[in-house]
Amino acid sequence: MNKAYQNIKVIGFDADDTLWVNETYFRNAELEFAKLLGGFETANKVDQELFKMEIKNLPLYGYGVKGFILSMVEMALELSNYTISNTTIEKILNIGKEMLNAPVVLLDGVVETLETLSKKYRLIVATKGDLLDQERKLEKSGLLDYFHHIEVLSDKKEENYSKLLKHLDINPAEFLMIGNSLKSDILPLININANAIHVPFHTTWAHEQVTEKETKDKAFKTVKNVREILNLLD
Amino acid sequence: MNKAYQNIKVIGFDADDTLWVNETYFRNAELEFAKLLGGFETANKVDQELFKMEIKNLPLYGYGVKGFILSMVEMALELSNYTISNTTIEKILNIGKEMLNAPVVLLDGVVETLETLSKKYRLIVATKGDLLDQERKLEKSGLLDYFHHIEVLSDKKEENYSKLLKHLDINPAEFLMIGNSLKSDILPLININANAIHVPFHTTWAHEQVTEKETKDKAFKTVKNVREILNLLD
Repeated sequence: MNKAYQNIKVIGFDADDTLWVNETYFRNAELEFAKLLGGFETANKVDQELFKMEIKNLPLYGYGVKGFILSMVEMALELSNYTISNTTIEKILNIGKEMLNAPVVLLDGVVETLETLSKKYRLIVATKGDLLDQERKLEKSGLLDYFHHIEVLSDKKEENYSKLLKHLDINPAEFLMIGNSLKSDILPLININANAIHVPFHTTWAHEQVTEKETKDKAFKTVKNVREILNLLD
Repeated sequence: MNKAYQNIKVIGFDADDTLWVNETYFRNAELEFAKLLGGFETANKVDQELFKMEIKNLPLYGYGVKGFILSMVEMALELSNYTISNTTIEKILNIGKEMLNAPVVLLDGVVETLETLSKKYRLIVATKGDLLDQERKLEKSGLLDYFHHIEVLSDKKEENYSKLLKHLDINPAEFLMIGNSLKSDILPLININANAIHVPFHTTWAHEQVTEKETKDKAFKTVKNVREILNLLD
């Protein structure tokens, strides 16, 4: 085993785009939304304005599908100069409902990794987003039994992780986080002296992107497939 | 001390309408919403239809302000036969934003009760609703330091509480729940052999109401003011 990991007691897994596909559903929703507003603006402009609206509303709505839909509705009103039709607004609401009802597609290697690690470590899910939505996805995923419990964090900054460790009654050195987002799953952990392994997903939301400078000299490993973690921990 | 409570290690407090005023904000929002739709239907009919829409959407949206607003928008489209104006929809979105920004008004006796109990027990907040919204309210309330952490449950049924106890690594007899809702904070706890004390609030959402039959022969105490708990536990 890699020496750095010998004290690990609890492993936290990010959920969206680490255990299962998620960002792809948001991208598809944005494409659909841009089509609905095609009479008013180019898809590119709609995308840009929606992103701005999401970031503006993030402190109030937080992460997850419900806030995303509320931002789409607000954006449609503004972008159309308050001329958007009622049926289009209904279609926007339905995009949200479809997202909440979407099937859970597991990423390659997840099941065998959890199967092996759950025998030796306490595994938890540590995710952002709507609690109900994340619980529902975990249930649909069939992965429920591998995890001790699910932690939904309102944000994934250093203070949120410090609170989580206090709550788990463990030291930073005893915690390993695994996830696809450098900004949310990796850097805050390294900064509080916990452990993190990065498993990139092919698509990253603009809000989650970090510069090369931010990751420079940070002590974390990157693996191509979540399965490779077994080599590092065994 | 009351003998039944001698094994208690962790006390869970419901948040909305137990620590601070909440239902009042929902009632005011409904009044405002009924006014906005006054051109289409009576306030009474608007109320009834909104309640139906909330219950219909509950499995998908869960509890909290964001789902409530999405249901109001959907209801406005339907009730107006898709003729509601864009500015009215914007006003509905703003009702939600005002709710999320509303001040936190503590209920009488809360501070001194927490001050005393926190010296002897591990206190947690156990609440439904949006995680971010509940964290924000806890922060605004000034009560943060009394609590070990906040648990946001997607629902408050027996299985949710059983999971919570497993997560806390304690037996049912070691847990006491305090809250205003018989349905959510009291009955499920009694049913899993944990402890519960009921502190009624003057307004209860229709969805949270229970019949007399459901509470008959159930072993829980009711107090008029949260402060009276100190007499039962000291």
